[in-house]
Amino acid sequence: MVLSADLLRRAGVELFTGCGATREDAETIAGELVEASLMGLDSHGVMRYAQYVDEVLDGTIRPKAPLTVVRETPTTAVVDCGSTFGIVSACRMVEIAIAKARASHLASVVSMHCQHVGRLGSYVQKIARAGMVGLATANSSRQGHWVAPWGGREGRLATNPLAFAAPTSGDPLTLDMSTSMIAEGKIRVLRQSGGKVPPGSILDSSGNPTTDPNAFYGPPHGTILPFGSPSLGYKGFGLSLLVEILGSSLAGVELPDSGVKPDYANGIFLLAIDPDPLAGPGVLRRLVDELSTYVTSSKPAPGHQEVVVPGALDFRTRAKRLAEGIPVAEQTWREIERAGERVGVRLPDLAQPRT
Amino acid sequence: MVLSADLLRRAGVELFTGCGATREDAETIAGELVEASLMGLDSHGVMRYAQYVDEVLDGTIRPKAPLTVVRETPTTAVVDCGSTFGIVSACRMVEIAIAKARASHLASVVSMHCQHVGRLGSYVQKIARAGMVGLATANSSRQGHWVAPWGGREGRLATNPLAFAAPTSGDPLTLDMSTSMIAEGKIRVLRQSGGKVPPGSILDSSGNPTTDPNAFYGPPHGTILPFGSPSLGYKGFGLSLLVEILGSSLAGVELPDSGVKPDYANGIFLLAIDPDPLAGPGVLRRLVDELSTYVTSSKPAPGHQEVVVPGALDFRTRAKRLAEGIPVAEQTWREIERAGERVGVRLPDLAQPRT
Repeated sequence: MVLSADLLRRAGVELFTGCGATREDAETIAGELVEASLMGLDSHGVMRYAQYVDEVLDGTIRPKAPLTVVRETPTTAVVDCGSTFGIVSACRMVEIAIAKARASHLASVVSMHCQHVGRLGSYVQKIARAGMVGLATANSSRQGHWVAPWGGREGRLATNPLAFAAPTSGDPLTLDMSTSMIAEGKIRVLRQSGGKVPPGSILDSSGNPTTDPNAFYGPPHGTILPFGSPSLGYKGFGLSLLVEILGSSLAGVELPDSGVKPDYANGIFLLAIDPDPLAGPGVLRRLVDELSTYVTSSKPAPGHQEVVVPGALDFRTRAKRLAEGIPVAEQTWREIERAGERVGVRLPDLAQPRT
Repeated sequence: MVLSADLLRRAGVELFTGCGATREDAETIAGELVEASLMGLDSHGVMRYAQYVDEVLDGTIRPKAPLTVVRETPTTAVVDCGSTFGIVSACRMVEIAIAKARASHLASVVSMHCQHVGRLGSYVQKIARAGMVGLATANSSRQGHWVAPWGGREGRLATNPLAFAAPTSGDPLTLDMSTSMIAEGKIRVLRQSGGKVPPGSILDSSGNPTTDPNAFYGPPHGTILPFGSPSLGYKGFGLSLLVEILGSSLAGVELPDSGVKPDYANGIFLLAIDPDPLAGPGVLRRLVDELSTYVTSSKPAPGHQEVVVPGALDFRTRAKRLAEGIPVAEQTWREIERAGERVGVRLPDLAQPRT
């Protein structure tokens, strides 16, 4: 089915206010998830509606819990997110980072007790739209440790994404990547469809390479390889440790014991760099434009139509889906409806005009 | 041949004072290059002695040129390195970054007119040994643009390394990686030895995959693929753009025209993060120790003896080479001798005791 961004946004606001979020927070959460769906990043889009409702109902997410800055200097802040919605937490952390970087040119904000933040690239794009260079990382609690260290066969890290955005005269140049070979969600989809995982992406529980999704899920459970496997996986392992250290160690968050229910989903690190005192006022934006023109001027390789900067295709998908609607799996909409029933809200009528 | 670190260091000091460096600078440069050789990173070690002497003689490197901080805030600095030795420049930038981060908790320093800095990991290790988290990137001037953008077949970026180090109770946990599939120097070695380049690393001038080093050198020249190729090269491309933007755009350095001799070799970005106001005094070091213990506790995969944290093997090689000496190719030593003749200095006698 194809649904409009507006309808999906209204459905999200109903759901999240229905389970205890303020109207402002509900609009933020639904807005972010619909943005991800618009960009084609469906795994971080409206398919998370039902998950977040479930997490409110089981006490993982605490709507209206206050965010508290527990330690602070002019350039740094540790934000205890109190397990409110991760998207609300990350948006507030971005505001703090931008405000501090406006005053001090450089700011770093890290999280405690932060729940799932959705699309990491969104937060660096907000920093870039404020005219700054943004860098962000997100680790996950021990529950998500399916990624093997380089040379290992037991999960020790999550898919640990990192994101980066720089201002341009148009949409921000944006990198948003996991530091593993494949996301767990994609392996799940391949198992459901009977497909094979690309070679060099996963190991079975004995540490042998496999392309069988079932060999990953076991039991016993296999692992995902760090980005760069087979020959260069030490790079992905190193990047993943960078994400782990910035996202959790730097906030003073202990590695939880394996048997304990984790008290966070994502450990977030944000860095905002005001380019003006470095490059001179307004210079960075122009230079990133020129760099984009230069790199995309390369003739395409066989099999490619053009060279585009990172993030550009997401913005194209966004324009298309804004005009034509967002494809939503029937199952996803059914789960959203069931979530609506659980919190006793009436979702928008699908028969309504869709724009 | 196997030479002691001490002999190589003395040879370097002779060479660099012989071509105009102060004794202190010469000790810094030789010390850094010998450290890289000790760690087994020979491409960034004493084989650069002759290159640096050549670059002094042709006017690229200007010994004793002053470093000037051209723009500065409490958290940021742009350092015009005046084309003195890149290693001297980067060491001074590290000092500035650490001093600013001690006062403001966060500091970023970028370069202009910086020559070849050698091993990037060295500079983040200095930051980590000062108790801070260090991040560094190094782009290269247009002369080194052999790396294709994702989907392209013309060189638009250099191998653009990034490095990261965090303090531990022992040697810093260190990532030092290029954002391309292979270094140009390795392709050169494979061409000399008649070897093949690993599949998925390079393209010929038409943009088709090849394993033939000669197809890379042409003419016409081929390209190196960004890290992650074939399927995930958009990640390496994005990381490479991050390095380019931080290393040059953020310093306000224009993309030079292709026909103009570049006025820098590396564009350096350094970030120092004082962890104490974030994690609490002394906490980060302990948490990184605990994280290292946790990740290396994974059982090894078949074909691996153990799991080690990034950088650990380099420190093992260092201990071994410090005890047993550094293997140096005959050709490298002959080039060092010839460099000595060109600047009229007498190198240490190889017949001397080697420790």
